[in-house]
Amino acid sequence: MVTADQPIPINGPDLPTYDELPVEPGGARSGWGLFGPTDSAGLMNLVTPEVTRAASTLVRTGERFALDLPTAFVSPAFFDRGVPRHTLIQRRPGLGFDDVYDNYFPQAASQWDSLAHVAARPGEFYNGATREQIAAGERNTIEHWGSRGIATRGIVLDVSASVAERGGPGASTPVRVSDLEEARERAGVQYRPGDILLVHTGFLTWYAEQSQEVKTRLARRGNTTAAGLDRSEEMAAYIWNSHAVGVASDTVGLEVWGTDSEDGPYGSLHRIFIGLFGLAIGELWWLDDLVRACNDAGRYEVFLTSSPGNHPGATGSEPHALAIL
Amino acid sequence: MVTADQPIPINGPDLPTYDELPVEPGGARSGWGLFGPTDSAGLMNLVTPEVTRAASTLVRTGERFALDLPTAFVSPAFFDRGVPRHTLIQRRPGLGFDDVYDNYFPQAASQWDSLAHVAARPGEFYNGATREQIAAGERNTIEHWGSRGIATRGIVLDVSASVAERGGPGASTPVRVSDLEEARERAGVQYRPGDILLVHTGFLTWYAEQSQEVKTRLARRGNTTAAGLDRSEEMAAYIWNSHAVGVASDTVGLEVWGTDSEDGPYGSLHRIFIGLFGLAIGELWWLDDLVRACNDAGRYEVFLTSSPGNHPGATGSEPHALAIL
Amino acid sequence: MVTADQPIPINGPDLPTYDELPVEPGGARSGWGLFGPTDSAGLMNLVTPEVTRAASTLVRTGERFALDLPTAFVSPAFFDRGVPRHTLIQRRPGLGFDDVYDNYFPQAASQWDSLAHVAARPGEFYNGATREQIAAGERNTIEHWGSRGIATRGIVLDVSASVAERGGPGASTPVRVSDLEEARERAGVQYRPGDILLVHTGFLTWYAEQSQEVKTRLARRGNTTAAGLDRSEEMAAYIWNSHAVGVASDTVGLEVWGTDSEDGPYGSLHRIFIGLFGLAIGELWWLDDLVRACNDAGRYEVFLTSSPGNHPGATGSEPHALAIL
Amino acid sequence: MVTADQPIPINGPDLPTYDELPVEPGGARSGWGLFGPTDSAGLMNLVTPEVTRAASTLVRTGERFALDLPTAFVSPAFFDRGVPRHTLIQRRPGLGFDDVYDNYFPQAASQWDSLAHVAARPGEFYNGATREQIAAGERNTIEHWGSRGIATRGIVLDVSASVAERGGPGASTPVRVSDLEEARERAGVQYRPGDILLVHTGFLTWYAEQSQEVKTRLARRGNTTAAGLDRSEEMAAYIWNSHAVGVASDTVGLEVWGTDSEDGPYGSLHRIFIGLFGLAIGELWWLDDLVRACNDAGRYEVFLTSSPGNHPGATGSEPHALAIL
Repeated sequence: MVTADQPIPINGPDLPTYDELPVEPGGARSGWGLFGPTDSAGLMNLVTPEVTRAASTLVRTGERFALDLPTAFVSPAFFDRGVPRHTLIQRRPGLGFDDVYDNYFPQAASQWDSLAHVAARPGEFYNGATREQIAAGERNTIEHWGSRGIATRGIVLDVSASVAERGGPGASTPVRVSDLEEARERAGVQYRPGDILLVHTGFLTWYAEQSQEVKTRLARRGNTTAAGLDRSEEMAAYIWNSHAVGVASDTVGLEVWGTDSEDGPYGSLHRIFIGLFGLAIGELWWLDDLVRACNDAGRYEVFLTSSPGNHPGATGSEPHALAIL
Repeated sequence: MVTADQPIPINGPDLPTYDELPVEPGGARSGWGLFGPTDSAGLMNLVTPEVTRAASTLVRTGERFALDLPTAFVSPAFFDRGVPRHTLIQRRPGLGFDDVYDNYFPQAASQWDSLAHVAARPGEFYNGATREQIAAGERNTIEHWGSRGIATRGIVLDVSASVAERGGPGASTPVRVSDLEEARERAGVQYRPGDILLVHTGFLTWYAEQSQEVKTRLARRGNTTAAGLDRSEEMAAYIWNSHAVGVASDTVGLEVWGTDSEDGPYGSLHRIFIGLFGLAIGELWWLDDLVRACNDAGRYEVFLTSSPGNHPGATGSEPHALAIL
Repeated sequence: MVTADQPIPINGPDLPTYDELPVEPGGARSGWGLFGPTDSAGLMNLVTPEVTRAASTLVRTGERFALDLPTAFVSPAFFDRGVPRHTLIQRRPGLGFDDVYDNYFPQAASQWDSLAHVAARPGEFYNGATREQIAAGERNTIEHWGSRGIATRGIVLDVSASVAERGGPGASTPVRVSDLEEARERAGVQYRPGDILLVHTGFLTWYAEQSQEVKTRLARRGNTTAAGLDRSEEMAAYIWNSHAVGVASDTVGLEVWGTDSEDGPYGSLHRIFIGLFGLAIGELWWLDDLVRACNDAGRYEVFLTSSPGNHPGATGSEPHALAIL
Repeated sequence: MVTADQPIPINGPDLPTYDELPVEPGGARSGWGLFGPTDSAGLMNLVTPEVTRAASTLVRTGERFALDLPTAFVSPAFFDRGVPRHTLIQRRPGLGFDDVYDNYFPQAASQWDSLAHVAARPGEFYNGATREQIAAGERNTIEHWGSRGIATRGIVLDVSASVAERGGPGASTPVRVSDLEEARERAGVQYRPGDILLVHTGFLTWYAEQSQEVKTRLARRGNTTAAGLDRSEEMAAYIWNSHAVGVASDTVGLEVWGTDSEDGPYGSLHRIFIGLFGLAIGELWWLDDLVRACNDAGRYEVFLTSSPGNHPGATGSEPHALAIL
């Protein structure tokens, strides 16, 4: 039944570096075509069985960390999205319950952005998919990941101390390449093709402590500020060259939010990561407990599984992510 | 943040056998209290870190099989539930998409039933939870599994040949203890506490080939027939004694459906498995591709991960299950 | 703001009779073009200010009868539609409430069918509107009535006694032209262009007394039986020649439901009334109290007001109808 | 079927004046008990058949004005409510359409506020109804009006010129008693028990001309400003003494919005009108076309019909209002 294209064989050393990628009309560099002209899964193709197998050997204690927030942890939702309305159904009172949800926005809580979520340029989505193809459910939507599942190595990059020093996670504090690089070195790992980077800024921990009034103000489009990856060519190159298949964080939008300008080729990392690289962006993941355990264990590599919704035509999904130490 | 009770230490050999369990008012036997008087997670407590660690060593090739059906694969939904309405939102036309779902019934597709789904007796749910406690989100609902995640050994039990011979998966064909036992022997495994049993009857494969008219008729409450576990004391005892934490199948309701009577202590396996044992029931899981791969590999043990929704107060969730060979 | 086309002047005596209408490809006769080639309101154009004014003079006692059923009076909904989920919102607990509805099907309760609801022939809707035009909200939908409102004479035609004698309202009992004619004579009125006919069969009164089991069985597509207008050329001609702008009844589908065949030019009165005549069909209206009052008063003419939803692009709406005696 | 309490006989001259009402704990005056201790319909009881009959004689030309805005005319909705999601359903492609709505907030567009919408004091609603009674659908909700319908005299009070001179309808411009009184005198009418006052400030006409950016800013809770009735004892007394059953306007909240304080007995006219008087408040009604026609005709009395939803347990409803000249 699963009709996803077969992943093409990937030979790690042969993946192009950022500088080897062609320049696209917007001025950044493009990874289109790497997996063939009709591919809808992007870099996730790098999670081959061998990558999964190798990652599974990282399990030491078997401790599990579920990385999805509880429903409505973030409320009100950012950017005018909504929180789900859950109705409990009693078919035969006293004998059992069913559920139904309305107003359920996958983009309002922990989430993966699929390659249909943000365009590379107006009307042009990852690998040349058009707006019409996406609306018709023909390209790039979340089932291209959901029908395969994800199981790979996760690298925990804890940059929260640096963020705290330079403005805090609730401000527009940029996470710099040097912050990521320091965290990686502390973790004592080298990146390998197929990794998922888990960037911990401390944002959700901070958010959880705010008053309802602050949360409401922060959620308004135009008011939102949050720490996140610096919008720069250096950052784009660093992420591409890591050959990670996804980057997830505990912030609103992965990239720094609330700075003045979205102009220039690197003004939107969403455009570059999703639209040009075919990279999965994870947002609002709960990393707090995991980071604490990593600190205790002195290990920052995990076996990371994620089962995005097998939801044809959808733009995104909760990650249903599990980190195993 | 995760406030789930700590799992109690379980020493496999010390788990009671079915015959050692007390008889409950309905005439079957009850596993209440095994994990303390306020426990809401049931047998899933047996999935300790050590169980997860051991299961991770089963990975050989790293091949992944996502076991959740695509949305609306089953349509119309069984038992008057509905299929989701998905709306694609264009915030800034051409630049990207968001999603929103309405009419989303977790019980309409691949699913886990939580311990809030079916009662042991009217008004009494697993481990003494009341209807009011469940409605208030205080006991037994799906986040007790979703906030921990599941990663354990899956045992693939393929009973489809026997079902095909004795009426087929679309009829009320009982899967007998002897069928399960034969499948287990073919698989060459012994059950261990913490396993999840994956029972393949061929139902969904058969369903996929039916006309829309047949699907519609089959979905009507009262008309539904499907192969599934035999309603008997022998079956209840067999499942308990396996010390499995969950049993999932590719059928509508795991147990045989459409037979005349639901009377007697064993007239409803839902009542026994969910209400008395605290066992997770999985329904409408897509096992077809996995079974084929197991047959090819000659192996029926998998590393099974599942991330049910971290959805406080919900009765069930898609399993977001991944089998890794 | 209201951009509805101006109604064309109608001179009652000049309206064509059914025999004067052209024969359409399906074999019945067509009223297309009567109000110009781009008209989307159909016969409702006949409700001119003068018609409204004249009808207002019918008020004698000022007694009001609201003709919309309470929400979920019909449950389960017929034909796999749903009943609304109503959520009461407490913004500031104790200070007030708001509402939100999900799963709200206007076709599940008292309703007007707009001229977008049923086609004359596949892909061809009233007055030549295409499926694409309707889906784009350009033609025939309910706001063409909702933005103008309806206020005209209602003629109460009580055929319940005849229906009761010949099978009852819950069976496929045809309401014949002779039944309508007798009711009209009893009412002592002549039809005038612009009238709305209110046909009382007793169906909803009967329905209200049925068990939940019967209601559930009756609601299933394929099982539904109900009294209603006979599917015949004679009936089509009678209704057209009355120059009524709408016909509403207390039955499921106005026309008789559950008979064997929908073949032939007159096999579907929906096709003829909506698709060819541009006539408003009203279904599941509560006429019981009104009929009783008419019987008491010995008058069967009412001032009838109706404010369909001003809902651009919608196929139908609750009638929000009021009969004033 | 309609089980609403019978209206009590009202003898206009005997209605108490504002000064004759008892002072309530909040410091204003209360109309509780006027129609008995269990009444849920409030002043709407004054719309007796005789009031309806008399109002029907006001029809001169029969011109109709539908006063409900089109769906989503106001977008984004004020105060974090939402606009409906409308899905067109094609059962048999090309042959017809059905509708379903989700996220439908009756309080987001033209509306009546029922007597369940705002409390007199925390936990105490009109006529002593409790929060629990309202949540249980036992008191004060919209079906108490919807099951009877409304047909009475409407008085058009055009205060837009005065509002325009003193800040405009988009600012917190108070409509004073003197403005209403001047408009009434221009209209040449005396108030009678049972009237509905239609107060035209020009707000929606102004709103329609604003940019999407202004509309978005204005809709935010905390940002909203709009002309409306002055919050004062004089205003409360004036409205009570008019013995109107409802006051509707083309503004967001009938009363002036965006002024500093909601303190004091008269800091919220919602509290007084709904919670203490049992008066219907109408908001976001489209009066523009009607006012123009009234100006042309030199008449400001109309026959006003309204059919609120017969929606048990709901807080409000679109008015489905029709003014007939």
